[in-house]
Order: sequence, then structure tokens, then C-alpha cells
Amino acid sequence: MTASLFDEIRREVERELTAIFDRRSDVPEKLLESMRYSVMAGGKRLRPVLVVCSAEAVGGDRKSALPTAAAFELIHTYTLVHDDLPAMDNDDLRRGMPTNHKKFGDATAILAGDGLLTLAFEVITEPNRHVPVGGDTRAEVAMVVARAVGAQGTVGGQQLDMEYEGKESDLTILERIHALKTGVMITSAVKSGAMLGGAGGRELSALGVYGDKIGLAFQVFDDILDVTSDAKTMGKNVGGDVRKKKTTYPALMGLEQSKVFGEKLIAEAEEALSAVKGNTGPLRELARYVAKRNT
Amino acid sequence: MTASLFDEIRREVERELTAIFDRRSDVPEKLLESMRYSVMAGGKRLRPVLVVCSAEAVGGDRKSALPTAAAFELIHTYTLVHDDLPAMDNDDLRRGMPTNHKKFGDATAILAGDGLLTLAFEVITEPNRHVPVGGDTRAEVAMVVARAVGAQGTVGGQQLDMEYEGKESDLTILERIHALKTGVMITSAVKSGAMLGGAGGRELSALGVYGDKIGLAFQVFDDILDVTSDAKTMGKNVGGDVRKKKTTYPALMGLEQSKVFGEKLIAEAEEALSAVKGNTGPLRELARYVAKRNT
Repeated sequence: MTASLFDEIRREVERELTAIFDRRSDVPEKLLESMRYSVMAGGKRLRPVLVVCSAEAVGGDRKSALPTAAAFELIHTYTLVHDDLPAMDNDDLRRGMPTNHKKFGDATAILAGDGLLTLAFEVITEPNRHVPVGGDTRAEVAMVVARAVGAQGTVGGQQLDMEYEGKESDLTILERIHALKTGVMITSAVKSGAMLGGAGGRELSALGVYGDKIGLAFQVFDDILDVTSDAKTMGKNVGGDVRKKKTTYPALMGLEQSKVFGEKLIAEAEEALSAVKGNTGPLRELARYVAKRNT
Repeated sequence: MTASLFDEIRREVERELTAIFDRRSDVPEKLLESMRYSVMAGGKRLRPVLVVCSAEAVGGDRKSALPTAAAFELIHTYTLVHDDLPAMDNDDLRRGMPTNHKKFGDATAILAGDGLLTLAFEVITEPNRHVPVGGDTRAEVAMVVARAVGAQGTVGGQQLDMEYEGKESDLTILERIHALKTGVMITSAVKSGAMLGGAGGRELSALGVYGDKIGLAFQVFDDILDVTSDAKTMGKNVGGDVRKKKTTYPALMGLEQSKVFGEKLIAEAEEALSAVKGNTGPLRELARYVAKRNT
């Protein structure tokens, strides 16, 4: 039953993304095609689903959260497009398809990423097309998102990841990189949904803890997946982390211990939800889904 | 007297920029250094000065406009950093100094650009540190800026510029590229200032026309400058447009006719200001400054 709820939310987010692109006929054709290509290439839409479920968990209207949910997918996609560039991770394959720069060239891929990031802030700050959302809330969500995905967040995480590639690093650095690269964006998705849903301070901080825990767990299980999966399941070249000597949880604490650590984070995430009064079922399910991806 | 007003505004904008970076100690060191390097490399700060003078022209408080003024310089700098990349215009020199990627490497330059763009939206949407500015206004300014500098604006202009490099193009395409690459950002700087200063609808639309005219004039005179100036004055490699076969106004309509066209735009910009009730002196001066750069 919950799986069909997630499918339903995914479909609504994809309709929202389609509507966003359909209103962008003033974008140069190749650039629009390139932006749409990477956003519509699929993916789990985990961040948008988190935004929506978080809004609903505090009793909010799903429609109040939909544009911001879509914006998170635009931002997530931009990070993938830029990270895949030859100057960065130099990946040819993403979700089983050629990466953006492989298909459209480096210049267009850089600009597509820039365009997606900017579009996200347009979507977050413009009046909600479905239901009224106050300007104060829109400004606050934009600020929280900008802080999470900027140089002190996601962008900084990628910078550190590049700097430590092929170098010795320890668990403290690894956790910082992962928190910045993946964790803060997931936490801010959960928080944005809560703000749009009208959460109080106590709920907001509980959902912040929930986001932190599943964000880290997500990366732990992603590292595990990189070791245990094969290219067919992942739709990208696996073993890439080992090939590039990137520091991973399995490399630092072993495969079994990594699984135990990931499970502990999921349990702590669920624990945090006890402070939230509304329907937290879908968020609990999402926490377990993060772990299940690996089995 | 007006020159000293602009110097004073520039100093205030640079203090604002310094304060913004000083609060960002949580950004990885090399990334922060790279972002600061390009922003603090100087430049005319034309866009921030326009934001402030526009706010003051409609009777607004300078302090209400300062963070957004700084944000425009962050965005302008990010476009320069990304446009200079080897995959784009491949420039080694900017404002007389090595371009960002020459000094910090391509990966850090891409991330510095991403970080600057995101930081701009953080600065625009967060509560103003100096005076209260409503969330509605902050959200609206962020939306106007995002629309101007995104894929349908600045980013799209760079895309078209790359696509038409070395190809035949006509005046219609040239004007579209320049409007997108330079004009819309200048127009949105003027409009943002007006909104922050509390402009009414009629003033806002008059200032929009003013912005459109000086934005185009700016590019016309920049093209002229590229032909007539030398490397020492410009602090970058000149003649670059001809070398790369970029379409320019002098190439399409001749040098003298380009100057006439530029002057006409400046006159129209000043004309538009007659609908604005407050002190439009500095904006008139700025319009003439755009033309004077060439003499």
C-alpha cells in the first residue's frame, strides 16, 4: 500500500516537472533538451518524495509542497550533471544512459546544470500555482535550500571529495564529505516539506534529526551497493569508488560493520519521528527503503 | 560629486561582500578562496550600483537594497568564472589576472561558480541584516532574479553565443543573444532595486524600460571597446571577439553606426526616467557612464 503511495507521489512530481519544462519554451532549444534529458532520465525521486511526505506528516497540503519537491529534483540533477563532467568525476554513464556532457557536449552540460540550479530557485520562490503559500515561507524555504546545497553544503562536499580523491582519509573526513554531499540536501528536503506543511518548532527539529540520520544512512548503503552490486542493477559503472580510490564506509570499517552502522542510523531516524504528531508512516517506510535498496 | 556617490556605494557593496564571505568560514578553504578571488578581483560593480541607485530613485532605504546588490555581483562573477572555462570561452586572463580555473583548476572553478550562484539566492532570501524587508518582497526579488539569470536569460544567452560562434548571424540573433547575456541581468538589477525601494507599478515599468535600454547600450559599447581598446586598458585579451568570429555590432553595422545606435539607446533610457518621481540623477549619470566608457 505504501509502495503505491510513493508511486503516486512520484507521478505527481513528474507531472509537476513536466509542467515546469512546458512553461519554459523561451529557453534555447538544445539547452532545454539537455536540461529535460537529465531530469526526465528517471531516478528514485527520493528527495521530492521526502518533501511531500514530510509536509503531509505535519498535516500539510501536498500541493503546497509539490513545486519545492520538483525543485529538489532539479537541484539533485544539476549536481549529477556537474559532478559527471570530465573536469570532475568524468563519468560516461548515468542511469544506464550517456551522461549529459557525453550527449550534449561539455559547454551545454555546464550551462544545463547552471540553468537547473537557477530554475529550482525560481520554482521555490514564485507563487505556488496550486494553493496559496505565503511569501515569508517561500523566502525561508529558499534560504534553507540555498544554505544546504551551496558552498557550505553540497558544493563544498564535492570540493572536499575531489581534494581527498586518492589521498588517505579517516572516518571524520569521510563523514563530513558525505554529510555535505548527500546528507544536508536530504535534511533540507525534509525540513522544507515540514515548513511548507506548517510544522511547529519541535516537529521541525525532530524532522531535522530524522533527515540527518537517513541522509547518512543513504550514503552508507550507497557505498555498500557500489561494492556488492553489478552494472546492470545500478545503471552506471560500478566499482568506480574503488577504481578512483575514493574513501568509502566498506573500505574504512568493512562491509559487515558498515551494514550494522547503516541499520543503527535507520533505527535512530525512526526514533526521532516519535516527536511528530501526524501520520509518520510513509517517512518510517522511506527510512527502511533506504536500507532495503541494498538487499 | 556623482562620481564620489558611486565610489561610496561601491565601498558599501564591497563591505557587504566582505561580510558575506566572512560569515562563510564553514566553506572548504580552497573553495572559499577561489570564490573570494574572483569576486574581490575588482570590476566596476555596475550591477550593484544600479540596484542601490534604483532603490534610492524611488525613495527607498539604501540598506534595504545592499544584500541584493551584493548578490548581483556574486551572480555576475559566477557567469564570468563559468564563461571563462576551457569548455566555454577558454580565457586565461580576466581583469588583468589569471582566470579562476587557471589559478584553481577547472573542477574548483566549476564549483566556485555553483557556490557563488547559490550564495546569491541565500543572500537575497535571508532576512536583511540591516533593516526589515518583508518575506514577500524577498521571495519576489529572488523570483525576478532567477528568471533573469536562468536558462531563459543569462544562461540561455551564453548557450546561444556558443552555438553561433563562427557561424553567420544577423542583427535579430545578435540582439537576442546580447539581451539574454547582458540585458536581462541589468534590467533585473534595476527592477530588484525598485522593488526593494517600494516602487509602484508605473515606476517599476519605467525602470524596466530604462534597464532594457542601458543593458543593450552596455553591450554595444562593450563590442566597440573590444575593437578600439588595447589589452592594457581592458585587463583582458582584446580582439577576442574577432579572433573567435563572434558576431558584434561593429562587425554588423560598422563602428560609427554602432556608436550612433548606442547613444540613441542612452537617450531613450534617460527619457524613460521621466516617469519616476524621486531623485533620478544618479541613474541618468549611470546611463551616460555606460557610453563614456568608450571615450
